[in-house]
Amino acid sequence: MHILTMNDLTNDDMFDLLHTAEGYRLQQQQQLIKPYYTANLFFENSTRTKSSFEMAERKFGMNIISFDAQTASIQKGETLYDTVKTLEAIGVDVVVIRHGEDRYFDQLDGHVKLSIINGGDGMGHHPSQCLLDLLTIYQEYQSFNGLTVTVVGDIQHSRVARSNAMALKRLGATVQFAGPKEWMDQDLQQIGHHIDFDKAVETSDVLMMLRVQHERHASGMTFSKQEYHHLYGLTSEREKKMKAHSIIMHPAPVNRGVEIADELVECERSRIFKQMENGVYVRMAMLQFVLQKREAKKHEFVN
Amino acid sequence: MHILTMNDLTNDDMFDLLHTAEGYRLQQQQQLIKPYYTANLFFENSTRTKSSFEMAERKFGMNIISFDAQTASIQKGETLYDTVKTLEAIGVDVVVIRHGEDRYFDQLDGHVKLSIINGGDGMGHHPSQCLLDLLTIYQEYQSFNGLTVTVVGDIQHSRVARSNAMALKRLGATVQFAGPKEWMDQDLQQIGHHIDFDKAVETSDVLMMLRVQHERHASGMTFSKQEYHHLYGLTSEREKKMKAHSIIMHPAPVNRGVEIADELVECERSRIFKQMENGVYVRMAMLQFVLQKREAKKHEFVN
Amino acid sequence: MHILTMNDLTNDDMFDLLHTAEGYRLQQQQQLIKPYYTANLFFENSTRTKSSFEMAERKFGMNIISFDAQTASIQKGETLYDTVKTLEAIGVDVVVIRHGEDRYFDQLDGHVKLSIINGGDGMGHHPSQCLLDLLTIYQEYQSFNGLTVTVVGDIQHSRVARSNAMALKRLGATVQFAGPKEWMDQDLQQIGHHIDFDKAVETSDVLMMLRVQHERHASGMTFSKQEYHHLYGLTSEREKKMKAHSIIMHPAPVNRGVEIADELVECERSRIFKQMENGVYVRMAMLQFVLQKREAKKHEFVN
Repeated sequence: MHILTMNDLTNDDMFDLLHTAEGYRLQQQQQLIKPYYTANLFFENSTRTKSSFEMAERKFGMNIISFDAQTASIQKGETLYDTVKTLEAIGVDVVVIRHGEDRYFDQLDGHVKLSIINGGDGMGHHPSQCLLDLLTIYQEYQSFNGLTVTVVGDIQHSRVARSNAMALKRLGATVQFAGPKEWMDQDLQQIGHHIDFDKAVETSDVLMMLRVQHERHASGMTFSKQEYHHLYGLTSEREKKMKAHSIIMHPAPVNRGVEIADELVECERSRIFKQMENGVYVRMAMLQFVLQKREAKKHEFVN
Repeated sequence: MHILTMNDLTNDDMFDLLHTAEGYRLQQQQQLIKPYYTANLFFENSTRTKSSFEMAERKFGMNIISFDAQTASIQKGETLYDTVKTLEAIGVDVVVIRHGEDRYFDQLDGHVKLSIINGGDGMGHHPSQCLLDLLTIYQEYQSFNGLTVTVVGDIQHSRVARSNAMALKRLGATVQFAGPKEWMDQDLQQIGHHIDFDKAVETSDVLMMLRVQHERHASGMTFSKQEYHHLYGLTSEREKKMKAHSIIMHPAPVNRGVEIADELVECERSRIFKQMENGVYVRMAMLQFVLQKREAKKHEFVN
Repeated sequence: MHILTMNDLTNDDMFDLLHTAEGYRLQQQQQLIKPYYTANLFFENSTRTKSSFEMAERKFGMNIISFDAQTASIQKGETLYDTVKTLEAIGVDVVVIRHGEDRYFDQLDGHVKLSIINGGDGMGHHPSQCLLDLLTIYQEYQSFNGLTVTVVGDIQHSRVARSNAMALKRLGATVQFAGPKEWMDQDLQQIGHHIDFDKAVETSDVLMMLRVQHERHASGMTFSKQEYHHLYGLTSEREKKMKAHSIIMHPAPVNRGVEIADELVECERSRIFKQMENGVYVRMAMLQFVLQKREAKKHEFVN
């Protein structure tokens, strides 16, 4: 059992995961009934996702086998497949992988016995970020039905945008997009409309700001930071026009003063650090989800 | 007590280690009676050896003090000796070291109180790989007497070839070599003969394929990958001519399609992933071996 | 509660920390009554300080969330502030930070709920090194009153010199400086006089040799290694002129044959490896100190 994309999960699975995560938020540390071994294979830079998975693993008392892409045999030409098979051979139960290649997991799925959790593939999918975003929205509104969520910014480079938009629509939310039209993703047109950013600010229950991924814009930015902030950034003026109780989200790292004004990052409407906190509980739930499938009975995983 | 080369071990020691390792394969996690501290100092890239030692340490519940050669004070000019003495001073009980310099351990042996396990020195020795290879053969044949083992390929650059050939001969096996004659090691001529590869394929109980170490061939390869595979690689045609029950081994990482055909890596005769699994148990046995020498009584190490 | 500079500690705090550390030296492993989570953020190379904090954390059984500055989102432009806030959000209780920027912690102090222990800031402060030096002197003399301590060498680049000189003076010692006059720090003139090195050798109870920090001398050294050793290095001839029972200290890594003759590094007067050992106990005391402030009652931290 893997979690590679949100398509691996039914709506019931998603709600199960959210409720399990919420349970972990309210509870003490869990104790596993036997040792499990994990490895976190991050081939792209990360603070949040990597630390958060590691925290989730440690809260369960799992044993983490360290892996550093820069000093692994990958550097001698070993393939990702052989690397993962090696970890399986030495006894690793679950690997979390972040990799720059879209759908890197297709070469693994069906050929390995350990469980894979996708920590982000290229511009493809990011299910753990999606689930933590869902949890943050669910904590706020206790439902997705009838909510208006606008995803703003660098959509074509964002695995977050793709995973979130599809999951939110499945769960009954109205999904919209805003930001530079040339950064829109054609495939997402069927999920929701592109609307004017200032209109989105006034009508959305959730504004989901995306990071401008300078490192993925091959040919350089077409906007200066100031221009982008002026046209598509959440300024203090715009924040004042938001609906009562509506919230601001961002997967982080934030380019402060670009996607969002510096002083809004920790404002009352912001759930940015709340998202990070939720990331730990959601990832605990994901680990539990894949590992329980390996055990005969549910209660065999945790006491 | 260290394990630096196979010469540190008597034949009885070797069998003790193999039996202890086999015991760990069949058992649950061990519990140490007091905390032990280890550090894994890898100055060369590694996935298998490093992860495997780490798994062995974690299965014992040892505390691992992380070490990254790229950010250590080695970068400020600190010597290996002072690095190891520092780890000793802060309370580390055992260090596993991989280093590019042949016999790096000569500067340490006799001057440190902690235990050293050699994880590979330059083109010198690789005792943990040797022991896991021995275990894999022993599981197959329950003896080394009368077995014919052929080591094939890049022998002069291989610390695996050297360690294995000498140990296997001591234990009663007939050791042969095959592959490019110019890659043969003069010192190993007294251990066994160089024979024609195709003849070796038909007569060996164990074919031990070595990785072509592109990174150690200073002046470039004299063969293309295709030529090497054609002349000295284990192709499907050759595999069909192997004796019944004979096995294929490789220390990995494998250059698929060079030393061995892609489709043979996981074939029925292949013990390549079995070798990796055995690596964990053998390294547990090695850790137990060196740490028990530090304690007054054998039963003080594990419950 | 943080420990950022020695000014955060009263004289009573310092003695408390030394007595707690000495207690840990004489005792077994401590058991925490609940899990704590730490992260070690080292933005500069380190073996001693990093390993020693990690050992201290592991001796308490703390959970360490790994952090590698080279693969963190810092590389995507994330600020130190956002990095630390992220770790706080996911549940980290204490971070140890080493950073090249003087007083990097000013941007964090007052804005974070987790505890910060400064592991060294630029040419500023190094409180854990200071405390381990104090412990080493205290073990030797059971007091600081009336002791003569001479700090020798690359004073202007040394956070150790600054932290130590001020703390020792506060505790009643006479502090002197020796070495190249042009490497003297103006601010430290009020703490103690610059005296002739050979006179210092004969009159000091403690010779505290500093590492020549080649990497911080922007315009290159004005001395060759041989010249420096001849003029300001502790040679065997000088060692013979030291007072009875006086000791040699060095924060390490040592440039052997520069600040100190190779053969003196492990001589009878040398406390260099003793300092490293003490580093673990002092850092345990520091962790206990900051974490106890987070708990209602002292006995809630350890059993």
